[in-house]
Amino acid sequence: MLDSQSPSALIATMAGEARAAAQALALLSTEQRRAGLRAAAEALRAARAEIIAANALDMKRGAANGLSPAMLDRLRLDDARVAAMADGVATVATLDDPVGATIDEVTRPNGLVLRRVRVPIGVIGIIYESRPNVTADAAALCVMSGNAAVLRGGSEAVESNAAIHRAFVAGLAQAGVPAGAVQRVATTDRAAVGAMLTADGLIDLIVPRGGKSLVARVQAEARVPVLAHLDGINHVFVHAAADRAMAERIVVDAKMRRTGICGAMETLLIDIAYPDPAALIAALVATGCEVRGDGRARAVAPGIAAADDADWDTEYLDAIASVALVDGLEGALAHIARHASHHTDAIVTADEGVAQRFLAQVDSAIVLWNASTQFADGGEFGLGAEIGIATGRLHARGPVALEGLTTYKWLGLGTGQVRG
Amino acid sequence: MLDSQSPSALIATMAGEARAAAQALALLSTEQRRAGLRAAAEALRAARAEIIAANALDMKRGAANGLSPAMLDRLRLDDARVAAMADGVATVATLDDPVGATIDEVTRPNGLVLRRVRVPIGVIGIIYESRPNVTADAAALCVMSGNAAVLRGGSEAVESNAAIHRAFVAGLAQAGVPAGAVQRVATTDRAAVGAMLTADGLIDLIVPRGGKSLVARVQAEARVPVLAHLDGINHVFVHAAADRAMAERIVVDAKMRRTGICGAMETLLIDIAYPDPAALIAALVATGCEVRGDGRARAVAPGIAAADDADWDTEYLDAIASVALVDGLEGALAHIARHASHHTDAIVTADEGVAQRFLAQVDSAIVLWNASTQFADGGEFGLGAEIGIATGRLHARGPVALEGLTTYKWLGLGTGQVRG
Repeated sequence: MLDSQSPSALIATMAGEARAAAQALALLSTEQRRAGLRAAAEALRAARAEIIAANALDMKRGAANGLSPAMLDRLRLDDARVAAMADGVATVATLDDPVGATIDEVTRPNGLVLRRVRVPIGVIGIIYESRPNVTADAAALCVMSGNAAVLRGGSEAVESNAAIHRAFVAGLAQAGVPAGAVQRVATTDRAAVGAMLTADGLIDLIVPRGGKSLVARVQAEARVPVLAHLDGINHVFVHAAADRAMAERIVVDAKMRRTGICGAMETLLIDIAYPDPAALIAALVATGCEVRGDGRARAVAPGIAAADDADWDTEYLDAIASVALVDGLEGALAHIARHASHHTDAIVTADEGVAQRFLAQVDSAIVLWNASTQFADGGEFGLGAEIGIATGRLHARGPVALEGLTTYKWLGLGTGQVRG
Repeated sequence: MLDSQSPSALIATMAGEARAAAQALALLSTEQRRAGLRAAAEALRAARAEIIAANALDMKRGAANGLSPAMLDRLRLDDARVAAMADGVATVATLDDPVGATIDEVTRPNGLVLRRVRVPIGVIGIIYESRPNVTADAAALCVMSGNAAVLRGGSEAVESNAAIHRAFVAGLAQAGVPAGAVQRVATTDRAAVGAMLTADGLIDLIVPRGGKSLVARVQAEARVPVLAHLDGINHVFVHAAADRAMAERIVVDAKMRRTGICGAMETLLIDIAYPDPAALIAALVATGCEVRGDGRARAVAPGIAAADDADWDTEYLDAIASVALVDGLEGALAHIARHASHHTDAIVTADEGVAQRFLAQVDSAIVLWNASTQFADGGEFGLGAEIGIATGRLHARGPVALEGLTTYKWLGLGTGQVRG
């Protein structure tokens, strides 16, 4: 890797090394990949002081550059956070291995056996922002699923990412897993991101991890397929037949448990026939949430602010919710069809027929009945960890974990068959 | 639809109508979709004379425009071909319905039930060339899988496609399936293709059906995900331990049964340790195949032409094959890694260990052991029909049929769960 290389030549070189490592990785046994990750976790623990020292450089530069307290907190590593990162890698090493699993198998009348088996995708590009733990998390998921990773972290975490990467690949190599399987783009030149996004044929899939502007840039520029969600404008529809206590509990949790995550509720839709919409809105207001209502919501809860047109398409990621009163299930479905981001939407109702229609007709990656939208998370789905949440329609939807990082091929086992 | 609309406005309008129809279609039962396709097949049969008359106009214009005999043959419809097209639609109506199937289901410790169910992708754009039967074939696969189709056929078949489309959607409507589910782009303005390729968010998936230049244009310009194969540079590797009679039978079938299909063998790799490479090459020559060899192949079969560098990357789609002698399995794997198009590759060997390594290491959509590459076909795979063959890594690989035209969503069934 030469400093004089153009960004696209640099990415081509790294992707080529990653491809070669991926081919070697695909031939390792499950246990060999698990051992590599355990060794990487151990190496991260052993390099704790070095990683925290590198992080201190990033923190100092970040403070000098005027990063916000929230950004500095995302950037900061300490003993506990490094330990948690290493534990996360070790946990990925315990997950079910999707590679090599048979999806289905059929024997044709001519005796040809056709078997679909899961295989790694190949080379995964990860483009992320300030949290340095993504370096280890994403690398672990890629290696466990037999993929090579090309990691491009944010410039604000460059020292931290370098130290984490160094320890991680040293651990892999110690256990006989090719270090080339995890490539790090060291340059902070933003043109390197553009080179990754257009490296079709070299990088097989891009996963952006970060804020909306990063994801929007990736989606706009990428020639390589992307797994991502741009935003989570998630709805909870409280139907006329909802249990009132359950509705309040779910609405408050969906909005307020953590307001900054993509699974948080942004819009509450209340059936016009729901017995006490004012109490439901009051429950939300009582938690400190700013509520912005449409005309009908303000008619029942005069104290709330007025929502304008933009509110229905806004992901607040904050203690703010928009609220509309809608005409039953049809009104809710129409609102969601117009404004949803296909991420996570929920209905609260005791009427199973209504729930089934909602589940069938809402076109989102995750559709919930009588549960909080905050369950939109790979860990909560039992996937062990997630590389991200996807709202596109192809390949993988919702929380994407190891299985989503695989594809399949067809094996045909014959005894001399010809079509003749 | 106004003639004065820009191509992108036209495609946006059609895709919007398709989306609305897709939403209605997704709510129909399996039996309703089957009935729609049976009615469409019946309507095609009933419109036979009208379709053939329309086709005669295309044939006349095509002849005047100097289309080649092969292209005119692809364009031509007669009683038998219309009947076969209608039968094809009726057959799709009998296939297993993937929509609504549960992929997996888990009950979490908190009681939340998470179920992944197959759902249609949404709106599929099909861009195709001269064969007018694609109008009916592609529409049938889309409707059966609950998707709406936006069809853009070649200008040379415009009258035929219009007549087929008219009959097809009339049949659908008779059976209560929305006619808007199958949209036809009537304009022959090539800018309409560009508008489809960049209609991200409006069209969910593009499937090109046609020659290499069409597929290359689609892959280069598309912002919408594409399922396709650019070419099928397929290899047969005859290993030292191959049964000689089987090897000759498979090689001759793979190359010569039909030379113009994407599953045809283009390159024969013969293990240097195979007992009689000259006889294998002679068997191919005896069928009328032109053979172009590397130096080692010409040393054992001096009569054949010399291959140049370009031959190893050429899809002949003709009675021509390139032949190289390689150093065992490793030599074959290296050649395939360098030159394959990730479509279909085969090994002939009696050595199971060698076969398993070939199956594991060749990175192609279809990898065969002791069978002809000409089995690369949805019908031969038992899928009933195919919309195409994909060589990309994501979503679906190899022959793509109804299941490949679906995605999934997560349903979460709770009893009031919150993350708290």
